[in-house]
Amino acid sequence: MATETHLSLSACETLDTQDPLRELRQHFSLPEGVIYLDGNSLGALPAATAGTLAHTVTEEWGKGLIGSWNHAGWFELPQRLGDRLARWIGAAPGEVVVTDGTSINLYKVLFAAISIAKKSYADCRNSQKSCKNIILTERDSFPTDLYIAQGLCAQHGFELRCVEAEELAPALTPDVAVLLLTHVNYRTGAMHDMAAVTAAAHAIGALAVWDLAHSAGAVPVDLNAANADFAVGCTYKYLNGGPGAPAFLWVHTRHVDAFNQPLSGWWGHADPFAFTLDYRPAAGVARYLCGTQPVLGLRAVACGLDVFDACLPLGGMDALRRKSLALTDAFIELVHQRCAGHGLALVTPRAALARGSQVSLTRRDPHDPTAPTGAYAIVQALIARGVVGDFRRGSGASHPDIMRFGFTPLYTRYTDVWHAVEHLRQVLELGEWRQPQFQGGHAVT
Amino acid sequence: MATETHLSLSACETLDTQDPLRELRQHFSLPEGVIYLDGNSLGALPAATAGTLAHTVTEEWGKGLIGSWNHAGWFELPQRLGDRLARWIGAAPGEVVVTDGTSINLYKVLFAAISIAKKSYADCRNSQKSCKNIILTERDSFPTDLYIAQGLCAQHGFELRCVEAEELAPALTPDVAVLLLTHVNYRTGAMHDMAAVTAAAHAIGALAVWDLAHSAGAVPVDLNAANADFAVGCTYKYLNGGPGAPAFLWVHTRHVDAFNQPLSGWWGHADPFAFTLDYRPAAGVARYLCGTQPVLGLRAVACGLDVFDACLPLGGMDALRRKSLALTDAFIELVHQRCAGHGLALVTPRAALARGSQVSLTRRDPHDPTAPTGAYAIVQALIARGVVGDFRRGSGASHPDIMRFGFTPLYTRYTDVWHAVEHLRQVLELGEWRQPQFQGGHAVT
Repeated sequence: MATETHLSLSACETLDTQDPLRELRQHFSLPEGVIYLDGNSLGALPAATAGTLAHTVTEEWGKGLIGSWNHAGWFELPQRLGDRLARWIGAAPGEVVVTDGTSINLYKVLFAAISIAKKSYADCRNSQKSCKNIILTERDSFPTDLYIAQGLCAQHGFELRCVEAEELAPALTPDVAVLLLTHVNYRTGAMHDMAAVTAAAHAIGALAVWDLAHSAGAVPVDLNAANADFAVGCTYKYLNGGPGAPAFLWVHTRHVDAFNQPLSGWWGHADPFAFTLDYRPAAGVARYLCGTQPVLGLRAVACGLDVFDACLPLGGMDALRRKSLALTDAFIELVHQRCAGHGLALVTPRAALARGSQVSLTRRDPHDPTAPTGAYAIVQALIARGVVGDFRRGSGASHPDIMRFGFTPLYTRYTDVWHAVEHLRQVLELGEWRQPQFQGGHAVT
Repeated sequence: MATETHLSLSACETLDTQDPLRELRQHFSLPEGVIYLDGNSLGALPAATAGTLAHTVTEEWGKGLIGSWNHAGWFELPQRLGDRLARWIGAAPGEVVVTDGTSINLYKVLFAAISIAKKSYADCRNSQKSCKNIILTERDSFPTDLYIAQGLCAQHGFELRCVEAEELAPALTPDVAVLLLTHVNYRTGAMHDMAAVTAAAHAIGALAVWDLAHSAGAVPVDLNAANADFAVGCTYKYLNGGPGAPAFLWVHTRHVDAFNQPLSGWWGHADPFAFTLDYRPAAGVARYLCGTQPVLGLRAVACGLDVFDACLPLGGMDALRRKSLALTDAFIELVHQRCAGHGLALVTPRAALARGSQVSLTRRDPHDPTAPTGAYAIVQALIARGVVGDFRRGSGASHPDIMRFGFTPLYTRYTDVWHAVEHLRQVLELGEWRQPQFQGGHAVT
C-alpha cells in the first residue's frame, strides 16, 4: 500500500535549489515579507526598470528633448517592442505592435473583424440569405471585452451572444461572424485550446479574436500555428510592464492590409510626417497605431521583456510552463492536504492542458451551504499576512466568488507556495477572516 | 524725429531681471547650452518629475504592488488631474479627464457629436429635409484631426469639408453638423476667437469641437464662457507632461450624460468592479474613460501641473500670457531688425488676439523667388548651434514650409530670445544652412 506523500517545506526548499529558473528572481525588486501571488493582475517590478526610466526621463527627455523622438528611437518603440514580444505569442516580427490599451486595441480589431464579416456576407436585412451578424463570446469574459463588443454591435447591427464555456461548441452556429474569447479566463484560470477552437470557428466561417491578457508570458501561445485571426493582450500582468502599461495587438497577415481599424490617427498613416490631407494607412500592423505613444510606459515594457530574454537560455517558455504547472500543482496539492475541512473548492480545471498560471478557489461553508463564501475576507486576511492574491466577485451559484492566486514562474518560489498555503490554513483554522476589518469592499483586476 | 529703438541684449537682461515669472525657470531641468524653443512640440522636463517617477516606480509599484491602485490613488488620477487642469481651460472640476491620446479622445467626442447631430436631425436620405451631415474643419488642421474625422464620416455617412481659415464663416452653411477646429494652428500659430466662432456655429445649429493641443497652458482658454460643446487636448506640449503623456478631454455638462462615447471600456462603467454583463456608462465625464490608464504617464502630468500651480500666486494665466506676448513680440521685432534682407517672412498673425505662443517664419530667396525656402536647413543649422525650433512641411504657395519657434513663458528668458535671433542672423549671414549636413529629412510634431 502506497503512502501518501505530503509536500513538505524541506521538499519545497530542495525544489527551489534545483529550479533551473531560480536566478530569474534576482531580476525583480520584490518587497520584503511579501509573497506576491497577484502577478496576474499587476506584475512585479523588474529591478532594471527604475534605472531605465530615470535615464529616459533625465537624459532622453530632459537633455535630448524633442530630438529623442529620433535619436533615442522613441518613434519605433511600438514596433520594436512588438517584434520582441512576438516570439512569446507565436507571432513573427512585424506582426505585433505595443500600443494604447487592451480595450482600445480590442475595439480596433473587433471593428476590423466586423468589417471583414460584412464584406464577406450580404446584409441579411436586404437579402434572402440568413444573417451572419453574431459575435459569440463567453459570459465569463472579462467585462470590458463584453462592453466593447456591445458598443460595436450597436453600431453595426450585430448582436452579442454570451454563453457558458461548455456551451460554446453548440453555439457556433452559421450566424456567428466573430468568436471573441479570452484564452485564459480571468476568473477561473481555465484555458481554451486555441487551435481547436479557432478551427471550429473557421469551420462555420467565423473569425477568431483572442484576448491574451492572462496568457502572454504565462502559457505557451502560438497564434500563427493556431491560425487565429486577431489577438490583443496586456503587458502589465505576466509581462511585468508596469501599472497601465500599453497593450499589444496582433493581426494575421492575411487580414492586415485588407482592412482598416477605425482609430485612424496619424501614427497609423503610411507617411505621418508628410502631413497629407487624406488618411492612407501604413502597410502592415503599423496601421493599428493611432496617436503619439506613451514613451515612459513603453520603456518600462522593454524592461519586462528583458527578463524574458534572460529566460531564453534557461529554456524559454517551455521552462516557464513546466515551472508554472509545478507551482500550481504544488499549490493545489497543498491546499488539498493542509486546508481540508474548511469548505475550499478548486474552481480552476485540474488538467494541465486546461488551465493557465493561476489557481482559483471558492469556499462553501461546511456547516451552512447557503452562507456567503467569505472569499473576499479570506483574501483580505491573507493580504494582512503578506500573502497577496485577489478576489473576484461572482454572480450566482454557477459563478461563485473566487480567490485568485497567480503564480509567475519568473519570481515565485516553491517555498512561497508552501508558506502561502500555511498562511491560508491559519486564516481558516483561526477563523481570522471573520474579523470585521476584513469584510466588504472592492478589488482590482 | 524719433530714433528707432532697437531691443538690445542689455535691455533683454533687464527684462529678465524684472520678469515676475523668472523664478519659474528653476522648476525645470534644462540642458546647458540649449535655447529650447520647441516646448510647443515636447515641453521641457520639470525638475520634480524624475523624483516623482522614481517614487512611483520604486515605492508605489515596487513595494505597494497591486494595492497601490487604491492606496496610492492610481484609480482616481484621470479625474484628479482633470480637476487640476480644468482651471487652465475654463472648465469646472468634474468636467475634465486626463486619459488616452488626443486622437483617441477626438474620436470619442466627435462620435458623440455626430450622435447628437443624428438624433437632432432626420436622416436626409429618408426624409424631405435637407441634410445636416457635414463636419467642417480647416484644411490646415493637424492631420490626425482630419484623419479621425474622415474615419468617422465614412462610418456615419457624414462628409468632411476642409476650407481655409478665412473661408470658415461663409462655409458655416445649414448642412454643417459639427465644426471641428484647432484653437491655435499648429503650423502658423494663428488663434481663433473661440467664443465668436462657437457662437457662429451654434447660430446654424452646429456643435463646436475644439482641439486645444497648442492652447492649453499657452493662452487663455475659457470653454464654458465660450459655450463650447467638446474639447480635447494634449499635455506633453505647453503642459510639460512628458513624451506621449496622456491627453485630456472636456464635455459640456449639457451633453455629458446624454450621449455615450464608442470606446465603452470598463473604466467608463458606472461600477467597474461590479463586473456586470452589461455596459452602463458612468455619470459625467468619467464615461469617457475606456481601459486601465497609464500610471507613469499620469504621474508625470501631475508634475507638469505643479509648475502651473506655482505660477498661480505670480499671476496665473494672465501673467503667462503677458510674458508670452512680450517674448513673441520681442522675437518678431528682433527678426525684423536683425535678419532683414534674407527673405524671412512672418507667417503668424501680428495681432496679439490672433495668435498663440509660437512664431512661425518662412523664407523666400530675395534673388530667386522660386527657390526652395530653406526652412528645413535653417532649422537644422540652428539646432546645431543649440537653438531648438522645428520645421513643418508646407504644401504649395499658400501653405509654405515653415520654421516654428515656441515660447513657453514658464522657462524662456528674454535673453534666450535675443540669442536665438542672433544665431538665426549668423546662420543666414554666413549661409551656414546651405551646408550639406543640414539638407533633407523629417521633423516631429
